[in-house]
Amino acid sequence: MTAPSAVKAALTSQAIETPSWAYGNSGTRFKVFAQQGVPRSPQEKLDDAAQVHRFTGVAPTVALHIPWDKVDDYAALAAYAEERGLRLGAINSNVFQDDDYKLGSVCHPDAAVRRKALGHLLECVDIMDATGSRDLKLWFSDGTNYPGQDDIRARQDRLAEALSAVYERLGDDQRMLLEYKFFEPAFYTTDVPDWGTAYAHCLKLGPKAQVVVDTGHHAPGTNIEFIVALLLREGKLGGFDFNSRFYADDDLMVGAADPFQLFRIMYEVVRGGGLTPDVAFMLDQCHNIEPKIPAIIRSVMNVQEATAKALLVDREALAAAQAAGDVLGANAVLMDAYNTDVRPLLAEVRQEQGLDPDPVAAYGRSGWAERIVAERVGGRQAGWGA
Amino acid sequence: MTAPSAVKAALTSQAIETPSWAYGNSGTRFKVFAQQGVPRSPQEKLDDAAQVHRFTGVAPTVALHIPWDKVDDYAALAAYAEERGLRLGAINSNVFQDDDYKLGSVCHPDAAVRRKALGHLLECVDIMDATGSRDLKLWFSDGTNYPGQDDIRARQDRLAEALSAVYERLGDDQRMLLEYKFFEPAFYTTDVPDWGTAYAHCLKLGPKAQVVVDTGHHAPGTNIEFIVALLLREGKLGGFDFNSRFYADDDLMVGAADPFQLFRIMYEVVRGGGLTPDVAFMLDQCHNIEPKIPAIIRSVMNVQEATAKALLVDREALAAAQAAGDVLGANAVLMDAYNTDVRPLLAEVRQEQGLDPDPVAAYGRSGWAERIVAERVGGRQAGWGA
Amino acid sequence: MTAPSAVKAALTSQAIETPSWAYGNSGTRFKVFAQQGVPRSPQEKLDDAAQVHRFTGVAPTVALHIPWDKVDDYAALAAYAEERGLRLGAINSNVFQDDDYKLGSVCHPDAAVRRKALGHLLECVDIMDATGSRDLKLWFSDGTNYPGQDDIRARQDRLAEALSAVYERLGDDQRMLLEYKFFEPAFYTTDVPDWGTAYAHCLKLGPKAQVVVDTGHHAPGTNIEFIVALLLREGKLGGFDFNSRFYADDDLMVGAADPFQLFRIMYEVVRGGGLTPDVAFMLDQCHNIEPKIPAIIRSVMNVQEATAKALLVDREALAAAQAAGDVLGANAVLMDAYNTDVRPLLAEVRQEQGLDPDPVAAYGRSGWAERIVAERVGGRQAGWGA
Amino acid sequence: MTAPSAVKAALTSQAIETPSWAYGNSGTRFKVFAQQGVPRSPQEKLDDAAQVHRFTGVAPTVALHIPWDKVDDYAALAAYAEERGLRLGAINSNVFQDDDYKLGSVCHPDAAVRRKALGHLLECVDIMDATGSRDLKLWFSDGTNYPGQDDIRARQDRLAEALSAVYERLGDDQRMLLEYKFFEPAFYTTDVPDWGTAYAHCLKLGPKAQVVVDTGHHAPGTNIEFIVALLLREGKLGGFDFNSRFYADDDLMVGAADPFQLFRIMYEVVRGGGLTPDVAFMLDQCHNIEPKIPAIIRSVMNVQEATAKALLVDREALAAAQAAGDVLGANAVLMDAYNTDVRPLLAEVRQEQGLDPDPVAAYGRSGWAERIVAERVGGRQAGWGA
Repeated sequence: MTAPSAVKAALTSQAIETPSWAYGNSGTRFKVFAQQGVPRSPQEKLDDAAQVHRFTGVAPTVALHIPWDKVDDYAALAAYAEERGLRLGAINSNVFQDDDYKLGSVCHPDAAVRRKALGHLLECVDIMDATGSRDLKLWFSDGTNYPGQDDIRARQDRLAEALSAVYERLGDDQRMLLEYKFFEPAFYTTDVPDWGTAYAHCLKLGPKAQVVVDTGHHAPGTNIEFIVALLLREGKLGGFDFNSRFYADDDLMVGAADPFQLFRIMYEVVRGGGLTPDVAFMLDQCHNIEPKIPAIIRSVMNVQEATAKALLVDREALAAAQAAGDVLGANAVLMDAYNTDVRPLLAEVRQEQGLDPDPVAAYGRSGWAERIVAERVGGRQAGWGA
Repeated sequence: MTAPSAVKAALTSQAIETPSWAYGNSGTRFKVFAQQGVPRSPQEKLDDAAQVHRFTGVAPTVALHIPWDKVDDYAALAAYAEERGLRLGAINSNVFQDDDYKLGSVCHPDAAVRRKALGHLLECVDIMDATGSRDLKLWFSDGTNYPGQDDIRARQDRLAEALSAVYERLGDDQRMLLEYKFFEPAFYTTDVPDWGTAYAHCLKLGPKAQVVVDTGHHAPGTNIEFIVALLLREGKLGGFDFNSRFYADDDLMVGAADPFQLFRIMYEVVRGGGLTPDVAFMLDQCHNIEPKIPAIIRSVMNVQEATAKALLVDREALAAAQAAGDVLGANAVLMDAYNTDVRPLLAEVRQEQGLDPDPVAAYGRSGWAERIVAERVGGRQAGWGA
Repeated sequence: MTAPSAVKAALTSQAIETPSWAYGNSGTRFKVFAQQGVPRSPQEKLDDAAQVHRFTGVAPTVALHIPWDKVDDYAALAAYAEERGLRLGAINSNVFQDDDYKLGSVCHPDAAVRRKALGHLLECVDIMDATGSRDLKLWFSDGTNYPGQDDIRARQDRLAEALSAVYERLGDDQRMLLEYKFFEPAFYTTDVPDWGTAYAHCLKLGPKAQVVVDTGHHAPGTNIEFIVALLLREGKLGGFDFNSRFYADDDLMVGAADPFQLFRIMYEVVRGGGLTPDVAFMLDQCHNIEPKIPAIIRSVMNVQEATAKALLVDREALAAAQAAGDVLGANAVLMDAYNTDVRPLLAEVRQEQGLDPDPVAAYGRSGWAERIVAERVGGRQAGWGA
Repeated sequence: MTAPSAVKAALTSQAIETPSWAYGNSGTRFKVFAQQGVPRSPQEKLDDAAQVHRFTGVAPTVALHIPWDKVDDYAALAAYAEERGLRLGAINSNVFQDDDYKLGSVCHPDAAVRRKALGHLLECVDIMDATGSRDLKLWFSDGTNYPGQDDIRARQDRLAEALSAVYERLGDDQRMLLEYKFFEPAFYTTDVPDWGTAYAHCLKLGPKAQVVVDTGHHAPGTNIEFIVALLLREGKLGGFDFNSRFYADDDLMVGAADPFQLFRIMYEVVRGGGLTPDVAFMLDQCHNIEPKIPAIIRSVMNVQEATAKALLVDREALAAAQAAGDVLGANAVLMDAYNTDVRPLLAEVRQEQGLDPDPVAAYGRSGWAERIVAERVGGRQAGWGA
């Protein structure tokens, strides 16, 4: 078993990146329910993110989404973040909301649309240069809705071409994280639907291309921790987009739907040597009906709790039971860690860092929620479209 | 086997209702791609629906959605429809887009919100009185996103109370069609998630309460034709919301994803005596990326083709093979009908009605598409929010 | 919150029935891996079940499966059980393993096969008279593999007829528990595929017909606790067949695949007043690769742990948060109970009953496993076919 | 559009391999229903396979399963086949039915079991040398049932080691086809669960390692034709195991559950240049309740019909519509081919080859079914275990 001090050290060194867009409004195709006090600018999103970091101590970076977080001066935005104890994290591209992208972006049948999409991706790398971001996160909504609508294989050729152009543009310390998604918004084919497709492209591109696992982007019943183990074995796990789901890409708070699954995933991360900065732990969630900042704090804590349990697994005992073919014994070792209430341990870790042991309660007492409702009046609230 | 003349008679008597909202813009939570020429008023939606009926001959009614199709004078709207050879069909309520409905409508924990929602449902019955509509279609987005968020059972009590109040208000020739849906927009519980829940409520309400089957609203792998057969056996099948899906509630053109399934459903309708006006055959689709009017024409034709194949099943031969336990023989009888190319038969049926044998081509030649693009300039295009 | 003493009282009064067949060999269609020491008779199964009850204190009854547990003298078998501190529980019928049942049993197109199946069901009630069992558990493998193979609706008629005949035969204190299953062994239609179908039949039959929920018998993504809440509200929840699954009807140890789901189910049981003898808590599992007796002990403990957590939910706090529309607060109340490590509480409960706090370890030390391997040599091991 | 003569030529050159085990008994874990006249030896299986080829003209090879088809003299068995107009096809290994394989074969934690399994695989290559078979088909049931049971990553290492040893043993004209499967018989992890895993291993092994797609081995909703298109693009599609499913790995007749999907798969085969001997078209089905030989004939015909429709797609028109972004037009081109009744075309093709236009009816009239029932009395019927 990992020594308690090592467990604590691991927990304090883990960094969880929060996404700027989770602080803004979001919803389903049926309705976006606006919330009071929602940020109206990238700066206000950083202000909120700073609250999450202030109370959890493990959320020091914020992912940006371009063009939702477009500003004139990214260096100034980075400085704004730093003043609040934050750094700018991954740059997320958006090639799905312009009218030109109705039938795809980098996979579109029309070369002019592909060029436009590629231009945006390259612009994102420019922004990375300015922000000092390491990771470019690529999610493509590309796909088709009807059989025959477009040529599946030709779209792969177009995808490969665009990825290659972006890869060439990456600087020495920059990476490209390719995300896959089972379906939505395309309903028949999706051009990067599974880890296999993302892996095959990344393999050809080279070491700076890595796969990112969004925990909500799989077919029903898919064993996600298996994929995590495989990608780590292949040296191709670039990071996570954490959230949780009961049905499709529900984007609920990570750990809310299946905390045992989250624990199993984090166990494979720990076991595979993935608890390092080389693997980016990012949230990608939609707080459609619950207040956003406390939901993000809760999500960060859920990742911490799962990580703590994963670290508590008695790996020597587990290995011994596995080697002996002791099915029940090996399972019991894993469940022992899972069934442990790690909240006292995490409270202790926080107190040792000078934090309140209960981040949600501390945030509640801070008055921030009331303040942003009072101050953020007028203007246009941030949302998926802005 | 049904005599050819009887098959033709059945095909000409089948009526397929198109929904006003399918003529407007729709999309996913990521993006609504607006199309040129989209209607800007309920009247323009009826104009488009009239084109569908003009070329197919079997789409004489149009479902309305309140408040998207709110007008001051419903009698005038009905007259407008009649002038175009149409009638107004089912009234669809909307208790999911007002800010008050963030945590539900008739199942909301707050009685004031429930009262508001009920008021809207009763207003819909008033509109039915004015339009002469027979059916009130009730779909509730009510549900919860997180375990514990609300009390599952109390929500059922609230639902039952609201349904009962609406039922009492129905006139002698009016019905209530209760729709179920597996998930979305709620991601943990949905208050009417399956046919069993809808059936249980309708049973208690009485004969004017019937279940409506939306073909996109089931768990993966669900045998929909089985549900159709059961509901017909129970006298509780009020109608269909047709569309098709590969993954979740994709709302693609009916028959586009699994034409064999549509055939099996229509076979159970025919076998169960459901090819009558007592069962409403309605479309409920989203044409997010394809032109709307020809997509609706194509969808109407898909229902016709599936119905034609279902009517062609040699039921005597089928019954004989089934009674004999001849698995392959019985399956072959069914497949014989399915494998038949019924397009020539339907072309003949159309020509006998004075219609063009190829409705899509005829619509294309009609110039309507070009005309609405030219004429419908300015104003606000209809969409899910208006 | 329930008082600690009340929680303990509830935990000691809960009875979990173990199934005789789980002590025998089982497997997949690919292979049955025989284990050493497996019982060779109903009596030896009872011997093993007595060990489970000896170490857990909450497994006092054993479900029988006819004909797998057929004996000449059921009263003698009941006495044999009583001598070991056990009682005979539910009688499970088997109308799926005789060659006549290839195309179904009570739904078979041939009336002679239906009569034979009905005869078996009635014989099971005779056995109940002899054993004093309260519950007849009915699971039908009936269904079809190919579209058209048989008439869906006619099969429902046949099913209803058989159920009615069995219902008439039930004594005053006897019940019929109707089980539903999504699929397997039938691959196209299953005649009782979902709770709605089981409910509709039970409703017509009367109060002695109740639905049984097997936790492995649902479509992917189905919200089982919702079904539990509904059936309790309707007074139609007769009991559970507990097990767990990642994919289909995997029949793994209950709580092994999704312990959070098990907790949510048990919470609805507690909340709906279902923690009473009127709801039968039964296991129905296959220990294909792990030793059977300790796996069953572990399963019983998993149900206890989930029940304990459900009892610990602070229901007043939950109701207050729900009424206030406090999504995060309500969820937190539920998660608080789930995240509690209840193993110390259960250890205490056991010690207060004079039991070892660690049933698995105590069983391991007891020497029973070694004894049955040594003694049960020769003869025919029990399995699904015997 | 492909010229009619070219379509016919393609249809007559397509070869569909039938599996020896499909002629024997099979079933579910609940029951194997034995059928009369089932083969009792590899030779009798070949006799039955010869009937399938006799009436369809496109099933000239038969896959063997070792040890189910173990014989002393494989050259003699090959000669026996040749006398009946057949050739021996792929060799299928079996490392899942020996008691040693309870916890796996080549991924087992115990090196001794792994050695035994590898020995069997190498023996299969010896058999290929004797039979002249080109393909070794590898399906591993390896996996785990419970979280923690074994180390996911270590099992991949063991798998890679075994595959590498087999690859080294392959002759110049021999290939290894690696099959993946979502789940079953393992219920938590499967060591080769998806195409990505199989692809990653094959890529490292080299050009003689290819992926085989079993159409029943995917998660719900998986787009199989997409995988086919990708593997063909990567030069890694070795072949198909055809069957169909509604739920899990149902192993029904190919084309029985979703004929439109089969058509889409065959379209990608045609489009990707896969209609060549480099791609093995094999059946892998279980005829649990229907007569086996006519079911196999029907399955071969279903593949032919799907192939014929795929060949009839007007690819120039399709490409034009796709390039123009004409969603409905492109879909209509595909559907035009699908909606065509190709049975007359295939009847013509058969007659031109001197075959009966209706293979099922011709087989029925042949008397073979009655003959084998009369002659194959006594002995042990072939099944999955022999």
